[in-house]
Amino acid sequence: MTTGTLLYEGKAKKIFTAERADEVVHYFKDDATAFNAQKRGTIVDKGIINNKVSERLFTLLEAEGIRTHFVKRLSDREMLTKKVTIVPVEVVVRNIIAGSLAKRLGLKEGDPIQPAIVEFYYKDDALGDPLVNDDHLRLMNIATPALLKDLRDLGHKINAVLKPFFAERQMQLVDFKLEFGVFHNKLVLADEISPDTCRLWDMTTGDSMDKDRFRKDMGKIEEAYQEVQKRVCG
Amino acid sequence: MTTGTLLYEGKAKKIFTAERADEVVHYFKDDATAFNAQKRGTIVDKGIINNKVSERLFTLLEAEGIRTHFVKRLSDREMLTKKVTIVPVEVVVRNIIAGSLAKRLGLKEGDPIQPAIVEFYYKDDALGDPLVNDDHLRLMNIATPALLKDLRDLGHKINAVLKPFFAERQMQLVDFKLEFGVFHNKLVLADEISPDTCRLWDMTTGDSMDKDRFRKDMGKIEEAYQEVQKRVCG
Ligand SMILES: Nc1ncnc2c1ncn2[C@@H]1O[C@H](COP(=O)(O)OP(=O)(O)O)[C@@H](O)[C@H]1O
Ligand SMILES: Nc1ncnc2c1ncn2[C@@H]1O[C@H](COP(=O)(O)OP(=O)(O)O)[C@@H](O)[C@H]1O
Ligand SMILES: [Mg+2]
Ligand SMILES: [Mg+2]
Repeated sequence: MTTGTLLYEGKAKKIFTAERADEVVHYFKDDATAFNAQKRGTIVDKGIINNKVSERLFTLLEAEGIRTHFVKRLSDREMLTKKVTIVPVEVVVRNIIAGSLAKRLGLKEGDPIQPAIVEFYYKDDALGDPLVNDDHLRLMNIATPALLKDLRDLGHKINAVLKPFFAERQMQLVDFKLEFGVFHNKLVLADEISPDTCRLWDMTTGDSMDKDRFRKDMGKIEEAYQEVQKRVCG
Repeated sequence: MTTGTLLYEGKAKKIFTAERADEVVHYFKDDATAFNAQKRGTIVDKGIINNKVSERLFTLLEAEGIRTHFVKRLSDREMLTKKVTIVPVEVVVRNIIAGSLAKRLGLKEGDPIQPAIVEFYYKDDALGDPLVNDDHLRLMNIATPALLKDLRDLGHKINAVLKPFFAERQMQLVDFKLEFGVFHNKLVLADEISPDTCRLWDMTTGDSMDKDRFRKDMGKIEEAYQEVQKRVCG
């Protein structure tokens, strides 16, 4: 289906040129990586699921007045988006203690975080995406204080939409990672929102329904991703 | 000389009770540690030097209107201070890129940082003093936003005093670590300021005059500490 030129191949997606110069096509792969790409594998049909889940969530967020890069879904694995200049900051929002937060700060996995917290990571694979503070991002000329405020506010705003959306579908939104980009001088939500980039726990059983199943070799990875798609898009 | 009861033995100092219940005696040891205490050694007379350098710098800061725990120096290795409740945050102020900052963010050692940046580390040996952001410290109930603002402002204020003081003595104040405590509901500067807790580069040669000589096995460690004492106290 894809006819454009490959601009970039990442760990989970390929980015191609689109007909319009200010748009790109995302091709969602089944490739899975973890721990800064030291662990590699495949999750069957993940690309299809992440594309469709992202479509649903971007549409939801747009309806709530949050600007995203989403234009339309082109096929099972392809999404047309605005072509943005990515801000090299991973914005992580956390509602429940899990993962690296528990480990780094010695906090108890599963404890609620009220109000949600926001973390910034410098998006740089070679450096392992290190945690940074506002001063670091200012020093590196990556973000002004005003942009950092916008990123933080958008993180909370998106959480205020997504958390109840997942709760209604019997999933706890534990934490998630966002990427933003600049399009015609405006900040827009970019990249994807999927079980690759969210921690989701089944409300009843507490089971992981996300990439943690791959990270921790928990099995039933495909089943979990399919179940998320069913609950989000079904 | 010390007659009080040992309250705490740290990596570089012992803390004893004083005559007054709201004061403590710091005994400065020669023990040196680095890399989260994985590397251990001794720097001859370091305790004496750090005690005297700290005395000079606390006196300087008090004269500039910055509250410190300093009461008086009791002997070569002993300092009387107010007994504070330590805020478990290491406040690091940086004027030049060096050490962990260069490594974590891929920045060039020696490049100036203008304006200075402030970092917070959660003071917890078992966790290796991890870098934290404001939200982490709020989540852990360690500091309110108001306290974090005070810590950050004090970091900059202290830097504005120390940086020119060292420059007049032909030393670049590359970066330094501060600890604060609460005394009768007021925030005061505590712990020590010494070649153990500062990076100092000779203005002419660029040579390290601080604990980096120990960390990196550069030799002439005692000589460097003595030279700092001479320039600061002499
Ligand atoms: N709308 C967009 N325009 C341009 N680049 C984008 C857009 N959305 C996401 N990107 C970037 O494209 C890449 C997506 O591929 P991915 O496999 O996720 O890469 P990575 O391995 O860097 O995470 C990422 O680098 C992401 O920042
Ligand atoms: N005025 C003070 N009152 C009480 N405790 C203090 C005061 N100043 C410093 N401290 C604490 O006393 C200890 C000093 O000993 P040190 O050897 O530096 O310990 P550490 O190994 O924890 O760095 C530190 O834990 C420090 O936070
Ligand atoms: Mg990605
Ligand atoms: Mg100490």
